[in-house]
Amino acid sequence: MDILIDSLKERALEHKNTLCIGRTHGIHAEVTTMGLKFAQWYDEMARNRKRFIEAINEISIGQISGAVGTFDHLSPQVEEFVCENLGLKPEPVSTQVIQRDRHAYYLAVTGIIAGTLEKIATEIRHLQKTEVLEAEEFFGKGQKGSSAMPHKRNPIVCERITGMARLMRSYISPAVENIALWHERDISHSSVERVVFPDATILIDYMLQKSIDLIQKLIIYPENMMKNILLTRGLTYSQKVLLALTESGLSREASYAAVQDAAMRVWRDESLNLKDELLKNDVVKNNITTERFDSIFDLKNSLKNVDYIFNKAFK
Amino acid sequence: MDILIDSLKERALEHKNTLCIGRTHGIHAEVTTMGLKFAQWYDEMARNRKRFIEAINEISIGQISGAVGTFDHLSPQVEEFVCENLGLKPEPVSTQVIQRDRHAYYLAVTGIIAGTLEKIATEIRHLQKTEVLEAEEFFGKGQKGSSAMPHKRNPIVCERITGMARLMRSYISPAVENIALWHERDISHSSVERVVFPDATILIDYMLQKSIDLIQKLIIYPENMMKNILLTRGLTYSQKVLLALTESGLSREASYAAVQDAAMRVWRDESLNLKDELLKNDVVKNNITTERFDSIFDLKNSLKNVDYIFNKAFK
Amino acid sequence: MDILIDSLKERALEHKNTLCIGRTHGIHAEVTTMGLKFAQWYDEMARNRKRFIEAINEISIGQISGAVGTFDHLSPQVEEFVCENLGLKPEPVSTQVIQRDRHAYYLAVTGIIAGTLEKIATEIRHLQKTEVLEAEEFFGKGQKGSSAMPHKRNPIVCERITGMARLMRSYISPAVENIALWHERDISHSSVERVVFPDATILIDYMLQKSIDLIQKLIIYPENMMKNILLTRGLTYSQKVLLALTESGLSREASYAAVQDAAMRVWRDESLNLKDELLKNDVVKNNITTERFDSIFDLKNSLKNVDYIFNKAFK
Amino acid sequence: MDILIDSLKERALEHKNTLCIGRTHGIHAEVTTMGLKFAQWYDEMARNRKRFIEAINEISIGQISGAVGTFDHLSPQVEEFVCENLGLKPEPVSTQVIQRDRHAYYLAVTGIIAGTLEKIATEIRHLQKTEVLEAEEFFGKGQKGSSAMPHKRNPIVCERITGMARLMRSYISPAVENIALWHERDISHSSVERVVFPDATILIDYMLQKSIDLIQKLIIYPENMMKNILLTRGLTYSQKVLLALTESGLSREASYAAVQDAAMRVWRDESLNLKDELLKNDVVKNNITTERFDSIFDLKNSLKNVDYIFNKAFK
Repeated sequence: MDILIDSLKERALEHKNTLCIGRTHGIHAEVTTMGLKFAQWYDEMARNRKRFIEAINEISIGQISGAVGTFDHLSPQVEEFVCENLGLKPEPVSTQVIQRDRHAYYLAVTGIIAGTLEKIATEIRHLQKTEVLEAEEFFGKGQKGSSAMPHKRNPIVCERITGMARLMRSYISPAVENIALWHERDISHSSVERVVFPDATILIDYMLQKSIDLIQKLIIYPENMMKNILLTRGLTYSQKVLLALTESGLSREASYAAVQDAAMRVWRDESLNLKDELLKNDVVKNNITTERFDSIFDLKNSLKNVDYIFNKAFK
Repeated sequence: MDILIDSLKERALEHKNTLCIGRTHGIHAEVTTMGLKFAQWYDEMARNRKRFIEAINEISIGQISGAVGTFDHLSPQVEEFVCENLGLKPEPVSTQVIQRDRHAYYLAVTGIIAGTLEKIATEIRHLQKTEVLEAEEFFGKGQKGSSAMPHKRNPIVCERITGMARLMRSYISPAVENIALWHERDISHSSVERVVFPDATILIDYMLQKSIDLIQKLIIYPENMMKNILLTRGLTYSQKVLLALTESGLSREASYAAVQDAAMRVWRDESLNLKDELLKNDVVKNNITTERFDSIFDLKNSLKNVDYIFNKAFK
Repeated sequence: MDILIDSLKERALEHKNTLCIGRTHGIHAEVTTMGLKFAQWYDEMARNRKRFIEAINEISIGQISGAVGTFDHLSPQVEEFVCENLGLKPEPVSTQVIQRDRHAYYLAVTGIIAGTLEKIATEIRHLQKTEVLEAEEFFGKGQKGSSAMPHKRNPIVCERITGMARLMRSYISPAVENIALWHERDISHSSVERVVFPDATILIDYMLQKSIDLIQKLIIYPENMMKNILLTRGLTYSQKVLLALTESGLSREASYAAVQDAAMRVWRDESLNLKDELLKNDVVKNNITTERFDSIFDLKNSLKNVDYIFNKAFK
Repeated sequence: MDILIDSLKERALEHKNTLCIGRTHGIHAEVTTMGLKFAQWYDEMARNRKRFIEAINEISIGQISGAVGTFDHLSPQVEEFVCENLGLKPEPVSTQVIQRDRHAYYLAVTGIIAGTLEKIATEIRHLQKTEVLEAEEFFGKGQKGSSAMPHKRNPIVCERITGMARLMRSYISPAVENIALWHERDISHSSVERVVFPDATILIDYMLQKSIDLIQKLIIYPENMMKNILLTRGLTYSQKVLLALTESGLSREASYAAVQDAAMRVWRDESLNLKDELLKNDVVKNNITTERFDSIFDLKNSLKNVDYIFNKAFK
């Protein structure tokens, strides 16, 4: 987990200012940066790390308290001695076994970690789609994609992680069901745990290993990101122009009419772009200085608070 | 949760030395006390309280960072100001929304709390069974059980809690699925959360309220507990006698033969008890002093480490 | 499954008239028979068998339709030929793969079958409890229970089945999540199915094998069943007496007062039984003939419709 | 469900020959048609309809068999009479209640139906993405998308359905847990069913209503589909050319070299397309007739088996 977190930070810093379109509902919204995506994953993984340490503490517990937890045949000092030597804390009150709320907590946390890895994998699967192609899983020289189509590189590691996250969250419910053992212990939890614990711990380890490799070698295509930003030919800036016009003193109605008129033309005709269409309108030209106008359409302005976010994330 | 924890402690102290049989696999094992059951629940509930505080911290987060989380139209200082006034911490890196691993964690923790309440309810359902009758849910004077059978008092609150715990753990999986939103946000989490959050929070509150009432008013029948302990007529002490005989210098084989012989007779004939049958055997009589013998069959000896456990649990 | 169904029928017929107390909410209700328990399991397992055949049909499907399901490079006749030779039906409309609603259905059905096996196992765990002891898992001569306590025979097979049922139902959710593959196929289902299909099919087979053995060799203790029936000393018949009194022309108020008075005395004093206490009351004596009275307290009357149920179940 | 099935059929026939790219792993694979997507959904929904009818049969069961299912106070004929009048079948063997495997089956089936609706919704969300834009949820004239960006139409109905499918599958597990009631009935299932049954049935009804509207009014953009097909400038046909060259007698090595050389140039240079680049190569020109060559690159050839599939699906 530490290596993954470090790798996410490294890629975040590397692509801090690599512009790409932000999407909500799958639709272009406003510009963001690839570095911010990595930074968000870094921040979430750091939360998961904190949760995981807590989960390990929760199950680092030992118990030698007899058939029903009363220390009837053995002194509690034996439990204390053994636990201390094993680096465990004694269970304050046990029955025949350590209580299973601890194990449920551990599996809930690993299920959530898998959910974060699924989120990362899902994003990359989207970015690798043929029409988008802003990023790609590393594709080794000897690796076989599709023999006939050189463009056919499939995000199979990300797809695998997606499926494994479904498995990881399926382990939570039986672990929570295990809490309500009968009386001083029944053994129904055992058949569950023999499957769930090795599977869950091996799986999350594998997912983390794969994710480290995925992030470290992920291929980023900044030029395609820019191409996608330009796909809507400036329409994403219509809100900023509207704001600038009303600030210049123009009525909201007149401002909106001017922007809408230009936007609709651009929307219908792929050869047009919003900036040029707006400049054909005297109302716009007379109310916004060229300087202001250029500033609105300057993508770098969208980055003005990236430093703030990075400082907060990586302090 | 605080009231429930206090109530569990109070009942634990009240029944610290109320002897009852401990059961593993549903079968009588060794003697324990009703207070130890309460103490174990107290200890587990205290863990849940700690988890719940962490879960609240995890979702006490605010965010006003724009359409894709870049603070394009608004200064981060607005977010800081608003969050501070609302007692929230700003999300370090957000997209259009606060990340859903936080909400998944919250629902996992409440699902686990419900698992603990289910454990308590399951124990009481077992103790209230006609053949056991060591405890009963409080049954109000005006309350209608069964009109015809005065003994028919059903543990309906415990059964209700059991069912509701199934609901509570069912909320975890959709919450974990919500983590992997597309890009800077898709709105698929919303329809889930509109159902799951009100239902889960109302339900866990109701379960806690019911559990407080359940614990505070739970009727305990110490005389029935003693009756059940005596059901096996001393057989639970055969291991201690065996140990005493071998310590006295008798060979393990001879010791085992002596105890087994007596135990088998007791097992087959309900009118016999282990102590008397053992005393008919000279091998036993000559190797264990009357004092030692009485001490073995003195139930109070099973309580010798209860103080140790209580001190650890309620320090 | 067929062997299990046959075994359940055999044990049902064997214990058709073996009286035992029926319990609702864990509390004694009215008398039933052990055969009826087996008959209910038989009936439910027969439903499961029907569902399972349907589930097998649902996944006995083949497909050779090319990269996106269009038969672009290969004639549909190849698919037809191969499927016919493999005993499969061709998928009417496929993408690159057979659709995953079929697999989800299969795993839902096996999860439900496991739920039925869990129900049987849970019942036996209850019947084997020390205070109840109406039935026991077979315990081989060489089998080691507890070395010290000859009565300590644990229902470990039933407990194991209980835990495995938790696993079996945990496979349903990832299988349903697998349905929504992207476009003409993504490979996220694969990592899920590599784990879930072998585990689920091996596990349900093992659970069925264990259940066959469990049912065939289950030890039934009719004398303990009768002992438990008598535990409440006739209180379960109070409703029938009440009914007979009102039918005799006595007012409901007077009838209820008479029965309640006797019932309360019996409830408080373990040395009393309802029949004798009622007969001490002249109101009862004068309104119910001795014949009718004996008939009410004749356990065999509770069996009058068992034939009807068996005829329906095993027609 | 019937209306949805009819609507899917109607849209399938309407777009039977509307070409679009098929995608596997999110990457362009081979050409298919929009009608085939609808046809596949139609076929799957028809399966769900069959399952749903079976599920309704499974729970159309009545029972009036007394406190523990023995018809102690009431003749079985009453049950028969009432059930017949209510259009229900009597439960062959009941306890105090109808057995809960039936309800689990019903909720499993509705959860799977929701999975199919999620698949449809997920596909449309993908097709509506800005870079793809092959289909769009209907967007009413008065409907508010985003005030500033006329292109910002979000697939909110599909996203809502996606979330609701998560809820629908979360109901399965508690329903399966409800099967193992204690003895002749405990009431733990009741608190589950009071929530799960109204929620699941209302939700699936709502999802179906929304899906009908979604399918009937779904806007299809055939011209964008064609634009996306052409995105890879003929690369999807490289396999067919390779096949044709080897069939002409050319060695596989020489064939592969010729195709790969052209494909690589096209892959690197967006101004090139595979057909023209291949024709520059004499090896290709001399081994494939112009007629064959045109036929390979004729999209209509990909439709040659669509009739076969439609005949099978809509027979």
